[in-house]
Amino acid sequence: MEKPQNIYDNTKFFEEYQKMRETKINANELIEIPEIKSMLPDLKDKKILDLGCGAGGMSRYFAENGAKRVLGVDISKNMINLAKKENNYKNVEFKVLEMERILKIKEKFDMVFSSLAFHYVEDFEKLMKDISNLLNPNGILIFSQEHPVATAIIYNGKEMEKHIDINGKRYYLLSDYNNNSKRVLNWNMQDTVKYHRNFSTIINSIIKNNMQILEVRESQPEKEAVKQVPKYKYQIDRPYFLYIKAKKL
Amino acid sequence: MEKPQNIYDNTKFFEEYQKMRETKINANELIEIPEIKSMLPDLKDKKILDLGCGAGGMSRYFAENGAKRVLGVDISKNMINLAKKENNYKNVEFKVLEMERILKIKEKFDMVFSSLAFHYVEDFEKLMKDISNLLNPNGILIFSQEHPVATAIIYNGKEMEKHIDINGKRYYLLSDYNNNSKRVLNWNMQDTVKYHRNFSTIINSIIKNNMQILEVRESQPEKEAVKQVPKYKYQIDRPYFLYIKAKKL
Repeated sequence: MEKPQNIYDNTKFFEEYQKMRETKINANELIEIPEIKSMLPDLKDKKILDLGCGAGGMSRYFAENGAKRVLGVDISKNMINLAKKENNYKNVEFKVLEMERILKIKEKFDMVFSSLAFHYVEDFEKLMKDISNLLNPNGILIFSQEHPVATAIIYNGKEMEKHIDINGKRYYLLSDYNNNSKRVLNWNMQDTVKYHRNFSTIINSIIKNNMQILEVRESQPEKEAVKQVPKYKYQIDRPYFLYIKAKKL
Repeated sequence: MEKPQNIYDNTKFFEEYQKMRETKINANELIEIPEIKSMLPDLKDKKILDLGCGAGGMSRYFAENGAKRVLGVDISKNMINLAKKENNYKNVEFKVLEMERILKIKEKFDMVFSSLAFHYVEDFEKLMKDISNLLNPNGILIFSQEHPVATAIIYNGKEMEKHIDINGKRYYLLSDYNNNSKRVLNWNMQDTVKYHRNFSTIINSIIKNNMQILEVRESQPEKEAVKQVPKYKYQIDRPYFLYIKAKKL
């Protein structure tokens, strides 16, 4: 097992990341957050765990919408400090904690939520086991992650393009879809480690750990997003994000 | 709704198809059948419906392995005639019936099975509804179909390759993954209509119709198959087949 990666505590990376987030013109704000919000159950009086909470935006949203208690955890001290600074809710708590060690949390939740963090975790099946342990019966797991068709490719040569245009039509490149393993990518000038898993591995890991799949979504070229960032039309060809909702049995 | 396609009753196509099947060196025999057999529950005393049964090979396999009754249906008269000719089991019945009209069947089953036929059906959600109606409580649905990453691409120009090799590494082309619609492909010298659906559409249609997902598999480069047909090693890059097992609630 590798040491969990903590790119957000790299100062240079964190600065670049903050700049990108401040513009609000990114796939996270325009595509992922609206979609995953539309999948949430009624939050009233719920106890919610937010895994990889980052700067805590969703944790605060849960509190705003009636959650009884929210615990947001993230591996990055930078992120948790930011989250604490921006937090005005007494029932929202933020803690530095790696996703690999969530069994240190000694309470149960009605919902476990995670936005775009699970693709950083090496052992997905253990993560599902731990989440299942932290959920009350009928508790809900909702998460987004990068889509397997987007994380699959292993590049032979650093500068390779992700797509090619032939006769004016775009085709994305796909390889190694069934090769569940580490991917090292350059993102914001930093080598970033992600873990690619095919669809069946993700689904079966949830099912094996006593959770029932309720809904799956794949990111679409939403009109409003495409208006602001035209290239998001290519979500029709190759989605960025996968969203899954499951229920503890 | 289009008229259901019946390519197997086109004489020329059927002859080519039979030649291909007789060699036993094809992805169906080497990859798909072994995999889906390994997903079957105990067949003893089960009532089984085989949708798109073709020449009835799997229907006979179910009888050999203890099924109480097997009904195999297929749109093609050619296929059903072949199935009847090769059948020695009194408890196996074959009928010409389109997948779109299975509600004409007035009995319930413990298992509904289908091998590589659902991608010919236009209305997948209706099919799942009809199957759910034909299943006893706790009844099992097991099916294989072409994998969404394999059916997705829409070719701009007839002669385009499905993949490109760059620096000695193979990359498959992917487009239109989220465009759930008809695909017209040339197969065995015949224009063949298939329906592409993304993963979430397939999964959600099952769930919405009162079935619980039990397992998902994607075809792998199995050693024995690759030994006989070396190009099957590319299953690692882009699987041909998707397999799903679900349970009626």
